[in-house]
Amino acid sequence: MRIGVLHGPNLNLLGERDPGRYGRRTLAEIDEALRIRAAELDAGVESFQSNHEGALVDHVQARSAELDGWLVNAAGLTHTSVALRDALEACGRPFVEVHLSNVHAREEFRRRSLLSDLAVGVVVGFRERSYLYGLEGLVRHLQESR
Amino acid sequence: MRIGVLHGPNLNLLGERDPGRYGRRTLAEIDEALRIRAAELDAGVESFQSNHEGALVDHVQARSAELDGWLVNAAGLTHTSVALRDALEACGRPFVEVHLSNVHAREEFRRRSLLSDLAVGVVVGFRERSYLYGLEGLVRHLQESR
Amino acid sequence: MRIGVLHGPNLNLLGERDPGRYGRRTLAEIDEALRIRAAELDAGVESFQSNHEGALVDHVQARSAELDGWLVNAAGLTHTSVALRDALEACGRPFVEVHLSNVHAREEFRRRSLLSDLAVGVVVGFRERSYLYGLEGLVRHLQESR
Amino acid sequence: MRIGVLHGPNLNLLGERDPGRYGRRTLAEIDEALRIRAAELDAGVESFQSNHEGALVDHVQARSAELDGWLVNAAGLTHTSVALRDALEACGRPFVEVHLSNVHAREEFRRRSLLSDLAVGVVVGFRERSYLYGLEGLVRHLQESR
Amino acid sequence: MRIGVLHGPNLNLLGERDPGRYGRRTLAEIDEALRIRAAELDAGVESFQSNHEGALVDHVQARSAELDGWLVNAAGLTHTSVALRDALEACGRPFVEVHLSNVHAREEFRRRSLLSDLAVGVVVGFRERSYLYGLEGLVRHLQESR
Amino acid sequence: MRIGVLHGPNLNLLGERDPGRYGRRTLAEIDEALRIRAAELDAGVESFQSNHEGALVDHVQARSAELDGWLVNAAGLTHTSVALRDALEACGRPFVEVHLSNVHAREEFRRRSLLSDLAVGVVVGFRERSYLYGLEGLVRHLQESR
Amino acid sequence: MRIGVLHGPNLNLLGERDPGRYGRRTLAEIDEALRIRAAELDAGVESFQSNHEGALVDHVQARSAELDGWLVNAAGLTHTSVALRDALEACGRPFVEVHLSNVHAREEFRRRSLLSDLAVGVVVGFRERSYLYGLEGLVRHLQESR
Amino acid sequence: MRIGVLHGPNLNLLGERDPGRYGRRTLAEIDEALRIRAAELDAGVESFQSNHEGALVDHVQARSAELDGWLVNAAGLTHTSVALRDALEACGRPFVEVHLSNVHAREEFRRRSLLSDLAVGVVVGFRERSYLYGLEGLVRHLQESR
Amino acid sequence: MRIGVLHGPNLNLLGERDPGRYGRRTLAEIDEALRIRAAELDAGVESFQSNHEGALVDHVQARSAELDGWLVNAAGLTHTSVALRDALEACGRPFVEVHLSNVHAREEFRRRSLLSDLAVGVVVGFRERSYLYGLEGLVRHLQESR
Amino acid sequence: MRIGVLHGPNLNLLGERDPGRYGRRTLAEIDEALRIRAAELDAGVESFQSNHEGALVDHVQARSAELDGWLVNAAGLTHTSVALRDALEACGRPFVEVHLSNVHAREEFRRRSLLSDLAVGVVVGFRERSYLYGLEGLVRHLQESR
Amino acid sequence: MRIGVLHGPNLNLLGERDPGRYGRRTLAEIDEALRIRAAELDAGVESFQSNHEGALVDHVQARSAELDGWLVNAAGLTHTSVALRDALEACGRPFVEVHLSNVHAREEFRRRSLLSDLAVGVVVGFRERSYLYGLEGLVRHLQESR
Amino acid sequence: MRIGVLHGPNLNLLGERDPGRYGRRTLAEIDEALRIRAAELDAGVESFQSNHEGALVDHVQARSAELDGWLVNAAGLTHTSVALRDALEACGRPFVEVHLSNVHAREEFRRRSLLSDLAVGVVVGFRERSYLYGLEGLVRHLQESR
Repeated sequence: MRIGVLHGPNLNLLGERDPGRYGRRTLAEIDEALRIRAAELDAGVESFQSNHEGALVDHVQARSAELDGWLVNAAGLTHTSVALRDALEACGRPFVEVHLSNVHAREEFRRRSLLSDLAVGVVVGFRERSYLYGLEGLVRHLQESR
Repeated sequence: MRIGVLHGPNLNLLGERDPGRYGRRTLAEIDEALRIRAAELDAGVESFQSNHEGALVDHVQARSAELDGWLVNAAGLTHTSVALRDALEACGRPFVEVHLSNVHAREEFRRRSLLSDLAVGVVVGFRERSYLYGLEGLVRHLQESR
Repeated sequence: MRIGVLHGPNLNLLGERDPGRYGRRTLAEIDEALRIRAAELDAGVESFQSNHEGALVDHVQARSAELDGWLVNAAGLTHTSVALRDALEACGRPFVEVHLSNVHAREEFRRRSLLSDLAVGVVVGFRERSYLYGLEGLVRHLQESR
Repeated sequence: MRIGVLHGPNLNLLGERDPGRYGRRTLAEIDEALRIRAAELDAGVESFQSNHEGALVDHVQARSAELDGWLVNAAGLTHTSVALRDALEACGRPFVEVHLSNVHAREEFRRRSLLSDLAVGVVVGFRERSYLYGLEGLVRHLQESR
Repeated sequence: MRIGVLHGPNLNLLGERDPGRYGRRTLAEIDEALRIRAAELDAGVESFQSNHEGALVDHVQARSAELDGWLVNAAGLTHTSVALRDALEACGRPFVEVHLSNVHAREEFRRRSLLSDLAVGVVVGFRERSYLYGLEGLVRHLQESR
Repeated sequence: MRIGVLHGPNLNLLGERDPGRYGRRTLAEIDEALRIRAAELDAGVESFQSNHEGALVDHVQARSAELDGWLVNAAGLTHTSVALRDALEACGRPFVEVHLSNVHAREEFRRRSLLSDLAVGVVVGFRERSYLYGLEGLVRHLQESR
Repeated sequence: MRIGVLHGPNLNLLGERDPGRYGRRTLAEIDEALRIRAAELDAGVESFQSNHEGALVDHVQARSAELDGWLVNAAGLTHTSVALRDALEACGRPFVEVHLSNVHAREEFRRRSLLSDLAVGVVVGFRERSYLYGLEGLVRHLQESR
Repeated sequence: MRIGVLHGPNLNLLGERDPGRYGRRTLAEIDEALRIRAAELDAGVESFQSNHEGALVDHVQARSAELDGWLVNAAGLTHTSVALRDALEACGRPFVEVHLSNVHAREEFRRRSLLSDLAVGVVVGFRERSYLYGLEGLVRHLQESR
Repeated sequence: MRIGVLHGPNLNLLGERDPGRYGRRTLAEIDEALRIRAAELDAGVESFQSNHEGALVDHVQARSAELDGWLVNAAGLTHTSVALRDALEACGRPFVEVHLSNVHAREEFRRRSLLSDLAVGVVVGFRERSYLYGLEGLVRHLQESR
Repeated sequence: MRIGVLHGPNLNLLGERDPGRYGRRTLAEIDEALRIRAAELDAGVESFQSNHEGALVDHVQARSAELDGWLVNAAGLTHTSVALRDALEACGRPFVEVHLSNVHAREEFRRRSLLSDLAVGVVVGFRERSYLYGLEGLVRHLQESR
Repeated sequence: MRIGVLHGPNLNLLGERDPGRYGRRTLAEIDEALRIRAAELDAGVESFQSNHEGALVDHVQARSAELDGWLVNAAGLTHTSVALRDALEACGRPFVEVHLSNVHAREEFRRRSLLSDLAVGVVVGFRERSYLYGLEGLVRHLQESR
Repeated sequence: MRIGVLHGPNLNLLGERDPGRYGRRTLAEIDEALRIRAAELDAGVESFQSNHEGALVDHVQARSAELDGWLVNAAGLTHTSVALRDALEACGRPFVEVHLSNVHAREEFRRRSLLSDLAVGVVVGFRERSYLYGLEGLVRHLQESR
């Protein structure tokens, strides 16, 4: 089982940007933690970060055939990108949506996600652990769907 | 560390009600799974289910002094109960909000939660595992907040 | 065939409360009329009134297995209770929604029902006779669905 | 006692159009059923169907002096015709609004009626029996108002 | 294959009314062009114009059995007629919606159509050619649906 | 100078329908008063009443070439008819909108007119005199526009 | 019979400000025309213009005891002044609302008046003649109310 | 004269919960203060607190016959309970609505009360003294209404 | 301790204007009652009424340095004056908002206040006694804030 | 005459993605069909697809000088890209908007296009043939505008 | 070239009111700075402050003939005064809108200006320097418009 | 002191695109003018234009460490890019928002900016000079914040 991880805009700044809200771990550390957790779940992960909506869409198209599902933190694009929504729907792979911070406790516009209704599940607010729970949730979902 | 689990209206029906959406495990099985997972995390849990908003509020008031946090699946009350929101805020304990189904993929009114902006985090859509991830997220949050 | 009748908050006041709007018959008289009409339709009814949302939910859960359908006047909870909606949906029994007064001729918030889209049908404005028509509609619906 | 029945646009198709939603009886059969039920209630009925808003308004104006009340299924005009609303209000006769299907379970725009707040009562969702219950409700209302 | 063409209110004025917006061809010329284009597609057309919503509904009911689909320019009724929507849905024939002018560049209320979500497709803004493209789209759709 | 008067649905009931709101004069009396007033202004009037939107549209199309302007009381169609709006715009004649009652003091939906922004002016609330003032306003407007 | 005329902000500029929209007559000329027309109606008028909401309120309070009704063009205050609304309601005198331009054909915020629902009637769009028609409408209303 | 006091959900926590917002006095102390103030006003009070909407409704029904009016702090139910609104309306006793904190300075959803339009008056923001002023306001209202 | 009292537009009419809604006492009588009540509370009051938003703003600016707080009935300006809101915020003195009538039971636009979220508290609906309760609430607030 | 074709995000997946909605032809096949149809119309086409909003904007800027118009299927960017709207407006070339699926029959957010009001015309719902009709519509528009 | 400066309500408090938001310079100092900057630009300025909407309107009317443009900080009236908008539009002089604080970072109602769409430009958030930039922008605009 | 200048989509077209709205200077000329003005203010500037949201985000991330603040004209992305908002917030540098045209006088959607509430200030409508005033405002803000 192989899971693709999508990190949206500005997530490459993790560890620097507002640690009180996003935690102190860098994106590389999160990716390493995901790799370890995935191995425990008999799965592999591959991560991709971009600040470009188009690059994320390209990547979803290019890699979906090799993958069983997506773990997606679309960051700011969560609220604005129909293109990413369409790519995830078109690729025919289940995905889980995660957010580091609690999007419901921030600006009003962050309460509306263009991805959530298509997702298997959503995890928000646990900083880097949102990814880990989302990963496990996705792997379990895939195991059960077989 | 001790965690209270709140199950809102109709969750006592789990295992019977629409297994395609909510899964096949009963509430007792979920509580047992939570107990096991909590033990692994060096924590204890105690669960409470009620179809009565008032009983849930009573319970939060009665038990918060003995507890470190709440794991809350308020079910239908999520969208309608200011009283439960107020009880959780007043008790001064962090809480995590969980849902079995993906509330974003159902009726429009389920997309608005009266609890989310006060929660540490939110987990939706992984059926009974939403509770497990929420539990772990809450325990980790409490460990770090010490 | 057996029909459960649910009377929501304040319906125990019938006969006293604003007879110009709700009619002069008491709830006991309505229940008696329902029993008689049900007998004519080869059905039985059992009635339950509560001012407690939770008690209504408990009751739906407890009795649905013995019943073929529900006749529901949720009164003020019509506009506010997702929990009751969920209980009625979860119990897997068809139901009919009735109101004594014409809810469309009153406050704006009474025009939105959280139950209507799940109901077989809705009857409003005929005072106690709303129940009788709703009962007959439900029984006929059940007969045809066999 | 004499009741006018108004059937709005497309109701002449009954029996052909989507029987799963509207039932299998033709409009003529419904009118016959209404005649029989009216006789049992010591009343007479006369029916009129048109696809023309203006013809329905003309008819309300022309016939109201001979009638005690109206039984109205305005179909699609329910949501769009202020003119029909005005005609019914101007004629000074009480009316009951009925719908074959459950309008609350369909498109959002069908949840708003331009007639309901002026009606004695409303019956929706019982297919052809909506008419019968509405007729009885109207006749009883008229008997009590004497 | 036989296609009915519906022209809504005021379209009989074509050629006179605001040629900058609607073009210079009369309705008769458009009908003639449709006949020629239909012949090329091995289809026949029959056209009907009315300023009366009810007459359009009558016509859809009367002619649908002889036709394979409808080409509809409902003009002002596009935004207001649930009755026409219901007729087109009830007749069980696919239809294409066309507009001469670009309705999106005019008053805000013209951006909402009561027909579009039921249509096979929509063509707006090409003056009389909107009809021709819509006709071809409908014929091709019918050929493929066989 | 020649003015067409359009009377919308239910205005043929004037004198009978709710005299407290609409006044005691019949439509024939209003037409007579308009004829007299028009003569004083060196103008002629011709009146047309219909309960049919389509008939009003037909009439606007048929008569505009012989007329200099329209005096329009569209009654309930004021709030719902894009077709009539389009006919008045297409005919290229200025028009004045009038209402007998004060539409701003009634149901909320009567505050929105589909005609007002195209009108020369609007007169509401003066019962039958709304017509007289509107007529004079239209005639003066036409005189000045020459 | 004595009528007070209220002219709101910027109406003192009449004759200079945008004659295409407001006409070429000055406020003094309008007041003179009102005086003449009032005399013909056996009434007197007194006019007051101010750019100050407070001064208009003061004036309504000070003069209402001597007057039978008000003719009001509140200009920009029409859409913003609850204080003026309250003054007119408190003074117990009927009033007519007038506007020189067609407020429905301008900015969206001009379509909402805080005065209209309390007015006897409203006249808009006839430039200075809006005042004359409004005056006559008010005088006739007062004569009939005696 | 006898006044019933209703305390809604979470008010039993007073003195503990967020003293900066709600003050330091306990509910028992407030009830004592109310008793003293009532005595000064020649009235008696009886208090009831519940976290259960249904219990509050039951209580209003059970006690209204013995009481002259209600002093109501419905807390979170203020914004969500049509059932309590209906109970207060049905009991036929005037009531005053009070809040400890300034609900207008908190979450947006607290600005809408389902009780206010039926109340004699509303007092918000003075902590425990809101009750005292509300009590006096209610007693004076009752004295004047005799 | 010294309290300024602000009376907004039309409050000078008290005693004359609609006594059923506003009571029979004149503004002078209310000011006298406030003076007496203030003396009992060891405070002084000074009152100011104006129909001019600007004069109220001027007055707040001019007198705040000599005062400890404001008691404000802004009447119609409550719903429209950002300038008065800004003046009260800028002056750095706490204020209490009062209304004679129950603003929640009147027009929809009266339910929104531009002052409430900045106020210590709000009292509505007790006629002249709203001022007395507000005064006491303000004085007690000031005493506790010392 | 030379037409640029813009294909937005995910359109490179055509033929694979949901053939029931988008048809079975690949983008290359659509481009080939456009080339053939363009040749019949004495025009040339050049196509460009990108998942990157910025690349589409770059392309519009780079190529507009060589082109007479654009045929645009912006896919998900239709609903979100002001930048693409601005590019198309700035380039000074007319464009036609096309969609493969009927956007009006899908999610609510797809009913709002940021391009439509600037377009010559819009074609939706005919799968690949939407492009062909749009191309012809654009070419004819350009021929007539000469 | 001569520029009028309008300072709205409460700006006379500058230097005292909340220096963190509005800066420490007084209005006199700002006016002096404007005079100096204007001289550098070969222009003169004259300033006017009032807390009265009406006085600002009077002033615009009185002085526009002598001026080439207006520099306007309408403060709280920005969001509420149609009268001031109308005065500025009627005077036929271009104006620039300025604000000391960033109105977009404050209450929601401050994000809507009744002046902006008529202004040459808008400058917000630079405290007293907003005036200086606005002045220069206005003068340059006037120089270029010659 | 060093300032980064961000130019969003389509600003590379300046000088060509609609000079009536955006002015005749090219982007290179604006950058040169900014360099000169910056030098006068003892600051340096570096400019970056892209039509790609992602490239702008990359650039903000890459350059912020070397810069003291940003001068941002996000063009169409102003209204749609949460990603750019997040990048600017994350970089911890103050920024000023500028627009060449008056966005408040254009399409409704341009009145909402996703950047304004985070900006130091906003300058709109002065064409290329918006940049110069924004630059000066930013530099002064930085000097004062030291």
